[in-house]
Amino acid sequence: MQQITILIHCADQKGIIAAVTNFILKVEGNIVYIDQHVDVEQNVFFMRLECELINKNISLSMIKEDFENTIATDFKMSWEIHIKDQKPKMALFVSKYDHCLFDILGRFSAGELNVEIPLIISNHEDLRPIAERFNIPFFCIPFTKENKEEGEKLQIELLKQHKIDFLVLARYMQIITPTLISLYENKIINIHHSFLPAFPGAKPYHSAFKRGVKIIGATSHYVTEALDEGPIIEQDITRVSHINSIDDFIMIGRDLERIVLARAIKLHAERKTMVYGNKTVVFY
Amino acid sequence: MQQITILIHCADQKGIIAAVTNFILKVEGNIVYIDQHVDVEQNVFFMRLECELINKNISLSMIKEDFENTIATDFKMSWEIHIKDQKPKMALFVSKYDHCLFDILGRFSAGELNVEIPLIISNHEDLRPIAERFNIPFFCIPFTKENKEEGEKLQIELLKQHKIDFLVLARYMQIITPTLISLYENKIINIHHSFLPAFPGAKPYHSAFKRGVKIIGATSHYVTEALDEGPIIEQDITRVSHINSIDDFIMIGRDLERIVLARAIKLHAERKTMVYGNKTVVFY
Amino acid sequence: MQQITILIHCADQKGIIAAVTNFILKVEGNIVYIDQHVDVEQNVFFMRLECELINKNISLSMIKEDFENTIATDFKMSWEIHIKDQKPKMALFVSKYDHCLFDILGRFSAGELNVEIPLIISNHEDLRPIAERFNIPFFCIPFTKENKEEGEKLQIELLKQHKIDFLVLARYMQIITPTLISLYENKIINIHHSFLPAFPGAKPYHSAFKRGVKIIGATSHYVTEALDEGPIIEQDITRVSHINSIDDFIMIGRDLERIVLARAIKLHAERKTMVYGNKTVVFY
Amino acid sequence: MQQITILIHCADQKGIIAAVTNFILKVEGNIVYIDQHVDVEQNVFFMRLECELINKNISLSMIKEDFENTIATDFKMSWEIHIKDQKPKMALFVSKYDHCLFDILGRFSAGELNVEIPLIISNHEDLRPIAERFNIPFFCIPFTKENKEEGEKLQIELLKQHKIDFLVLARYMQIITPTLISLYENKIINIHHSFLPAFPGAKPYHSAFKRGVKIIGATSHYVTEALDEGPIIEQDITRVSHINSIDDFIMIGRDLERIVLARAIKLHAERKTMVYGNKTVVFY
Repeated sequence: MQQITILIHCADQKGIIAAVTNFILKVEGNIVYIDQHVDVEQNVFFMRLECELINKNISLSMIKEDFENTIATDFKMSWEIHIKDQKPKMALFVSKYDHCLFDILGRFSAGELNVEIPLIISNHEDLRPIAERFNIPFFCIPFTKENKEEGEKLQIELLKQHKIDFLVLARYMQIITPTLISLYENKIINIHHSFLPAFPGAKPYHSAFKRGVKIIGATSHYVTEALDEGPIIEQDITRVSHINSIDDFIMIGRDLERIVLARAIKLHAERKTMVYGNKTVVFY
Repeated sequence: MQQITILIHCADQKGIIAAVTNFILKVEGNIVYIDQHVDVEQNVFFMRLECELINKNISLSMIKEDFENTIATDFKMSWEIHIKDQKPKMALFVSKYDHCLFDILGRFSAGELNVEIPLIISNHEDLRPIAERFNIPFFCIPFTKENKEEGEKLQIELLKQHKIDFLVLARYMQIITPTLISLYENKIINIHHSFLPAFPGAKPYHSAFKRGVKIIGATSHYVTEALDEGPIIEQDITRVSHINSIDDFIMIGRDLERIVLARAIKLHAERKTMVYGNKTVVFY
Repeated sequence: MQQITILIHCADQKGIIAAVTNFILKVEGNIVYIDQHVDVEQNVFFMRLECELINKNISLSMIKEDFENTIATDFKMSWEIHIKDQKPKMALFVSKYDHCLFDILGRFSAGELNVEIPLIISNHEDLRPIAERFNIPFFCIPFTKENKEEGEKLQIELLKQHKIDFLVLARYMQIITPTLISLYENKIINIHHSFLPAFPGAKPYHSAFKRGVKIIGATSHYVTEALDEGPIIEQDITRVSHINSIDDFIMIGRDLERIVLARAIKLHAERKTMVYGNKTVVFY
Repeated sequence: MQQITILIHCADQKGIIAAVTNFILKVEGNIVYIDQHVDVEQNVFFMRLECELINKNISLSMIKEDFENTIATDFKMSWEIHIKDQKPKMALFVSKYDHCLFDILGRFSAGELNVEIPLIISNHEDLRPIAERFNIPFFCIPFTKENKEEGEKLQIELLKQHKIDFLVLARYMQIITPTLISLYENKIINIHHSFLPAFPGAKPYHSAFKRGVKIIGATSHYVTEALDEGPIIEQDITRVSHINSIDDFIMIGRDLERIVLARAIKLHAERKTMVYGNKTVVFY
């Protein structure tokens, strides 16, 4: 039995839920999960629905066409339908820090992530041995101010060639170029090592130490052109105290970075996030 | 415009959501919140729905009758409809500990709790001055093995007389009698000072200290005849360490008790909890 | 048996701990708690020590004199000695929000806070009934741009008259004047409703909502002339999600404000905080 | 400059801290960390001290002899001195679950753990490929009721041969034998997937689900003969709700298991834990 996930958003109107659930009934789908959200301020309706297609005579393409021609048109919906078994293809971008990479590849190997990882791209050679240990193709594309254009071109070629669905910056220490961002809008996940909006930019642990905070954090977010200002997917924090040095902050923070990035990957891969304005709706 | 909250549970079946949302559409309700849950193991469907009644010509009693005669019957639903503005009446049971009482009355006075508090019942006189400070009627009903029957009778009379909807045991140090429990099934909220099921019964902080745990907790739950085994509404914990004495545990725990009990009261008063088997569904 | 608390800080040097513990031995003190911290960056040594004075023939004033003339001089120490039973006098500053006030007075009445509260000062009359309910003198001193100087003068007179040791701003909505800050350096505790340094200034919940954060927080700190930039005493956070409105943020935040402020009061009242640079050392 | 860590415990007596710090002064040590704890109930004194040995003419063996003959004898101390640069040798025991193994080996490879890992022992062949990927020798010793004695003998031989200092059971699904426990008293770390003492024994996630708890946890502890009752090193929890299935509990729990086990390994490897009675003192 095929299982599909439907994501919908549109202007909030009377009768949407009834219309959608009636439609599912009509195509003999069995709803196993449904959740919706209304952004009252902006008057936007969001829905996430998982259902099993019981009648094999009603194909997915028929359903899609029918959906588009009826309620999607009626309610002016933006919508996506994903087949649950089709794993999205994820590209990992790394530089020299290895802790997030180890964590993601460990989880991937342990079967925890609903993704394929066709390749790892780095601006340094340092982490190639780790990629090889996990049998993931590793491409080193040096990236400096001088070769920016060339580097970006190579990156995009590789991503297209491997039909990449979304990117994960696992402590990748380069700014993503606007062209790449526009190609993967709301599909590039970054991990920043502070509870944003506190301490954006470089060296957040040093700034946190200097400020004398009692908690440090990490934030995963979609990358936009404004540095560290994209829609937040997930955040978490840990308590620190005066006994902790900057080095302690960095070490403690590694666990936050690992966890908060892994959660964001999981949520995105399972199509549980939707972006609107500069915010996310995250369906659990 | 009247706002109502509908709580439904029944065996899980195809088409329930569509049927309910179609019904709301028919009576010209505007859904402002809808959430549902399916317990796959037990095949039970749960729904919580808030809607505004737009058409004043369609009265609540007409809606109730219509609902009962159509889909409630079709799907064999258990259901309740509450008017959002009608605050439930809560009775507080206390003994000698004052911290939860201060917290609840402070919140109540600050307008945070959607309840009325017609009375406080205690087996001791100690907390009467606090009740008086907040202008809440206080009734002392001594409760010993000898006068159990008489005490219970007096309690029940008071509760009936004041049309009490639910009870909150704010560190009340007596066992609630089976008769009272059966009169207020899933309507008596207790706070236990451990993360149940660890450390049930008396002196949980002492047991926690002896066991050398690194976290202590508190649990709010509905009272059933099995001591500390009723459906859990909310739990929370705090870290402790070897430097903490039993007295520290007790002091730190007071904050947990306050918070965890207050959250349970809020959830219950806003009709966000449903009980099935020995568990709760808590809609946020 | 008298119990005292000693707080020391000085440049880090070899032999400090030995010298201090030898001194305590000499005056027949029984150390029940000792903790120290070295700020490696700034080369500052901090110590907090609790001891019981066993020999009644050795008076506290003798000890103080001896301490000053020997090791305090040798190591160029800044130091304080407090008698554990002497409760510090705390002044509460409030405006119109009542939730922190209820919480503090509830805790105070329940015997949780090691303080006296000789008075409450407010720039509005609104909360007078609460003060009266708890029998705490309440003084309303209106505070506008026009009467700033006069208002400050009245405040300071009241504080002196009641021999106030430290101030707590329980959601007091006025800027504290530099004169008052200099009179109570590191002795004015404020609660700010965000995890600083994120969202300083006005309306932090609104800013947090707009930014789409997944956690909100509260911060208690000592007041300095730079708004919301003083030494942080305590912080905590709670998870939020897209389903929460700004009103939810405000309501959820009230619990954070209460808890984080209460912890700071407790720490300060028990002489567990020391300030250096713009940071705190908090001994638990 | 050599750096050493000293761990001490003995009956609490007047003058211990002074004696120890005077001793360090005498041997020209520079104290960089000192922490102590008194268990008031049991009258036991604990101390952990890190210092740099500045004078190269005073050797560690001279210090040890001097310490033993003077204050260790005077105060009847149990004590250990560790050289900070000497990494303890850790043996990993695993069965079929791979997530903790991936996490530990990832952290180890990333340089986060102050240990050597000379070998992995398993009762199954399943995880051999992971060991090989990280170049750690892997020994499969089947372990059934029938070959228990033989299996234990082989385990002990391997541990001795590799001079193992402590054992980590990374979801090892066999009971450790009393002989092995007695050889490595307070040196075998286990991870249990519940917040003990709740849900000891098999299938804790299933029990937690059945009980309807709102938090699940994990506990790392030293192994004693009483199953899941040894001294607790670290615990942590995560919130769950009615929407989570048993499979969700298991998946969410994996992160808890990883983190809580990794923290315990770090604490033990850095000699920050001391055991007394059935509790731990954990110096941060």
